[in-house]
Amino acid sequence: MKQPYHSNTLKVKALGIDTYRENNIYMLIDCDICRSEGFTALTRIVVHHNGKSIIATLNVVHSELLQENEGGLSDIALKRLDVKDGDLITVSHLKPIESLSDVRAKMYHKKIDEAAYYRIINDITNGLYSDIEIAAFITACAGDNLDLDEITWITRAMIDSGSKLEWDEKIILDKHSVGGLPGNRTTPIVVPIIAASGLTIPKTSSRAITSPAGTADTMETITTVNLSIEKIKEVVNKEGGCFAWGRLAKLSPADDILISIEKALDIDSAGQMIASVLSKKVAAGSTHVVIEIPFGETAKVRTHDEALKLQYYFKVIGDAIKLNVEVLITDGSQPVGKGIGPSLEAMDVLSVLRNQHDAPSDLKEKALMIAGALLELSGKIEKGKGVSEARQILESGKAYAKFKKICFAQGGITEPEFAEYKTEIKSEIAGIVTGIDNRKLAKVAKLAGAPHDPSAGIYFNSPIGTKVEKGQTLFSIYAESEGELQYAIDYLESVSPIIKIV
Amino acid sequence: MKQPYHSNTLKVKALGIDTYRENNIYMLIDCDICRSEGFTALTRIVVHHNGKSIIATLNVVHSELLQENEGGLSDIALKRLDVKDGDLITVSHLKPIESLSDVRAKMYHKKIDEAAYYRIINDITNGLYSDIEIAAFITACAGDNLDLDEITWITRAMIDSGSKLEWDEKIILDKHSVGGLPGNRTTPIVVPIIAASGLTIPKTSSRAITSPAGTADTMETITTVNLSIEKIKEVVNKEGGCFAWGRLAKLSPADDILISIEKALDIDSAGQMIASVLSKKVAAGSTHVVIEIPFGETAKVRTHDEALKLQYYFKVIGDAIKLNVEVLITDGSQPVGKGIGPSLEAMDVLSVLRNQHDAPSDLKEKALMIAGALLELSGKIEKGKGVSEARQILESGKAYAKFKKICFAQGGITEPEFAEYKTEIKSEIAGIVTGIDNRKLAKVAKLAGAPHDPSAGIYFNSPIGTKVEKGQTLFSIYAESEGELQYAIDYLESVSPIIKIV
Repeated sequence: MKQPYHSNTLKVKALGIDTYRENNIYMLIDCDICRSEGFTALTRIVVHHNGKSIIATLNVVHSELLQENEGGLSDIALKRLDVKDGDLITVSHLKPIESLSDVRAKMYHKKIDEAAYYRIINDITNGLYSDIEIAAFITACAGDNLDLDEITWITRAMIDSGSKLEWDEKIILDKHSVGGLPGNRTTPIVVPIIAASGLTIPKTSSRAITSPAGTADTMETITTVNLSIEKIKEVVNKEGGCFAWGRLAKLSPADDILISIEKALDIDSAGQMIASVLSKKVAAGSTHVVIEIPFGETAKVRTHDEALKLQYYFKVIGDAIKLNVEVLITDGSQPVGKGIGPSLEAMDVLSVLRNQHDAPSDLKEKALMIAGALLELSGKIEKGKGVSEARQILESGKAYAKFKKICFAQGGITEPEFAEYKTEIKSEIAGIVTGIDNRKLAKVAKLAGAPHDPSAGIYFNSPIGTKVEKGQTLFSIYAESEGELQYAIDYLESVSPIIKIV
Repeated sequence: MKQPYHSNTLKVKALGIDTYRENNIYMLIDCDICRSEGFTALTRIVVHHNGKSIIATLNVVHSELLQENEGGLSDIALKRLDVKDGDLITVSHLKPIESLSDVRAKMYHKKIDEAAYYRIINDITNGLYSDIEIAAFITACAGDNLDLDEITWITRAMIDSGSKLEWDEKIILDKHSVGGLPGNRTTPIVVPIIAASGLTIPKTSSRAITSPAGTADTMETITTVNLSIEKIKEVVNKEGGCFAWGRLAKLSPADDILISIEKALDIDSAGQMIASVLSKKVAAGSTHVVIEIPFGETAKVRTHDEALKLQYYFKVIGDAIKLNVEVLITDGSQPVGKGIGPSLEAMDVLSVLRNQHDAPSDLKEKALMIAGALLELSGKIEKGKGVSEARQILESGKAYAKFKKICFAQGGITEPEFAEYKTEIKSEIAGIVTGIDNRKLAKVAKLAGAPHDPSAGIYFNSPIGTKVEKGQTLFSIYAESEGELQYAIDYLESVSPIIKIV
C-alpha cells in the first residue's frame, strides 16, 4: 500500500501555445496518470523536473496533438520549468494550500495576523494560488477591509517576498504619484533634476495598471527599461538615477502578481495600493519618498477628505516601516500635459526637458513642485527654496543633459512616434471648457490601444478654461490599427460628452 | 474610417482540447486579426457563428497546430457555439461589461439596488463574466456583506435567470439540509415517504459544492439523475416525486455558475447560500419548504446563534418571495449514518428504506423528523403527528416501494458498489469516542476521490459514545486508485487526530 505513487513520468511536448502567465499542461484523456491519479480537466497539478516544480492547470486532450506518454506544456510553463521537447517530467497532486484558510477568514472580515499575511504573500509569490484565488484575496482586502496594522503587515510581507537593493549613500530618494490622472508623467522630469543636483534616485516604475500608460510604458518608447538589478546598480552608480521597470528587478514580486489580477478586475484599492507603493520603495532601498495625491471628481481619489485619509495612512505606515514620507495633495480635475498614452506622454516629457516654447507648462510646474519637495526632504536644500533650485537645474539644460546620460547608460535614446491612424474630435458648439471626465478620456485612450500599442492614445488640446469655436479640435485619437481606432470612436459616440463646454 | 471592422473570418478547427467549462479560442500569433484588432494572449473576445455568439479566451499559437486563417476552439466552445470543423466564425472585441461597475461598487461595500443584481445575474448567466470576475463578485458578497434586501433581490434575479416548473397541485413540497455534515443524506428517504403519502415533492438536488457528496451524486449511483424538465414532469406526474440533478433542469442557472467558482474557492457564504437554496425551490415550483440547519463545532454552521440567524434570514426572505418556510435546527456534532461519499451514502439510504436491522438509526430518525415536518407543514397531517405518520409509511415498506417506482420511472435501479482500494484506520488507544472533526473527515473522503470517484469515501464505525479497544477499526477509507488512497492516508498522518478518544 505504501508504495510511491508520484512516479508518473511524461515526455515534454512544446505545443507552441502562449497562455501569457498561465502554466498549462496538456495530457491525453485516457492516459494512465489521469486515470490513476483521478485528474480531470482544470485540475491544478504539480509538474516536476530536475528538482524544480511548477503548478499547472490540466487541459485534457483527446486528439492527435499528443502521443501516448507525452505531456504538452504552454510556453510559460516550459520557461518556468526550464524544459524543452523530449525532456522527462513527472506530475503529482497539489497539496492543500493552508494559507487559503487565512484568505477565507479575511473574506469573512476577520482580522488576520502578520504571520498569515506572510504565508499568503509567500504562497502567491511561489505561484501556488490560482487566478480566482488571487481575485478572492484582492476582493477580500478591497474597500476598507484592511486596517493600518494589516496594511503594514502586508507591506512588510511584500518587501520580504523579493530582492532588495542596497546603496552606499545614506539618502536615497524616490517619488510616486497616485494614478488616475491621464498624462501625469512627472517622473522622467523629476529624476534627472534630482540626479543632476548630486542626489541619488534609483527610480523603478510600474507599467499601467488600469490607466493608458505607466512610467515604464512611457520611458520604454525612449530607452530600454527592462534592466536587471546589476544594470540598475551600474546606471545609478554612474549617473545618480535611472528609469527601470520594477518587475524585472524582482522588487516585491508578489505585488506584480496581485497587480496583474487587479488590472483584469479594473480595481486598485487603497490598502493594496499603499502596500504596493511603499513595498516597492523600501525594496528599492529608498529612505525619503515624496508621494503626490491628485484629487478630483474623476480622478482616482475623488475628494479632499479621501486624499487626507490616504496621506494619513501613507505617513503612519511609512513610520512603521521606517521610511520618511512627504505627501503632496494636488489638483486632479483634468489631464496633465497634452499626451495620453506612452509615446504621446514621452513627447510631452521631452519638450519640457528641452525647454521648448510649446512645452506644457502644467506638466513642467508639477514636476518642479515634486522635485523641489524632494530636494527639501533630503535636507540638501532649505525649506522654501526647493522649487527655485529645481527650476534652475531644468531651465539651464542640466536636467536634459542628465536625462540623456541616463538613457545612454541604459541602452540608448530613440524618439517616440505618432501612431499611423488618427482622427480629430471636434467641438459641436462654441464656448468655454469647464470640465473634463478623466476616466472616460482614459478609457478612450485604452480602447485605442494604449498602453499595449505604445503610440496609441490621445493628444489633448482643450484644458479647462479654453475658449473653443464650433468645429475646433478638442482632442485627437491615435491608434495603431483601424479596428481599435473605430472601437474608441464607437465608445465615444455611446457616452455623454467627455469635455464639458458652456 | 467608418468601414466595418468586425468582418474577421476564421475557419473552425476542433483541436480536441477539453477545458471543462472554459471557452478557449486558439489563433496564430501573426494572423491579420490578432494584429489589426490588437488581440494578445488571454484577451477575451467575442466569437460569432450563425447569429449565436460566445465569449472565449485567446490562446496564442505559434506552431503547426493551426494553418493560416484557422481558429481552434476548445470542446465546450464548439458545443456552445454549435460549430464543427470547417465552419466559418468571426471574432470581435468584447464591449465593456457595464454591470462590472456594480460589482466594483459592492467590492467597496456599497449597497447596490435590485436592478443592479438583475444586471449582474443576467450577465453571469449569459457567460459575459470571466472566472476572476465571478470570484470577485462572490467574495464581495461573502461575509456579512449582503443585507436582507440584497439577498431577496439576488434570489429573485436568480429565479428569473432560468426555467420555472409549474404544477397543477396547489401544494408542492421540498426540503433542504444546509451542508457540512458528512453523510447527512436524508433526501432519498424523505422523498418516497412524502410521495407515498400522496403529496407532491419534485426534488431537484445539487452535486457536492465543497463536500464529499451531494444528493445528486449519491442518487446517481442508484439511478439516472440527469433528467430534462420534460422527464421531471413525467416522473413527478406519475409517482409524485423524483430525484433530479437541478442543473440539467436549468433552474437558476446563474446559481450553478456561481457554485462552480464557490467550489473552487471552497467557500459557501450565508447570503449566497440562502439565495441559492430559495431560488432553486421557487424555480422548481415549490410552495412549502422544510430547511434543516445542523450546527456543531465542525459543521458548516458552528453555533446555535448562527443557526438562529440563518433561520431568521430564511423566514424573512421566504416571506418576501412568498414561500412557506419551516426551519429545523438540529445537532451537527458528528456524521450521520456510516457512509461518506456517493456510493457509501447510497448504501446507508437503501438499508434504511429496506428496514434492515443494521440500518443507521440516526439517519432514519432524522429523515423521519424532516418528513414529519413536511407532512405537518402541508396541512395534511395535524401538528404533532407527522413523525409517527412518516414512520408508518417507512416501516410498512411503502416508502421503499415508492422509491423503486421513482427510480424505475427515471431509468432503472443499480446497486451501489464499494471501491477497489481500501484501508482501515485503527485506534491507537482504548477509550471512549468524545468528538469528531467533521471537516477533516470530509477532507479525507474528498482526497480519496469523492465525489468524482463515486465509490470513494469513508465507512465510519465510531460515533460519539463508542467504546473502542486498541487496534479497533475507527473508519475505513475507500478509493478507486492507489494514488488517491495514499494521498488520503498522507493527509491523515499530517493532521491532529480526527476522532477524539479519551
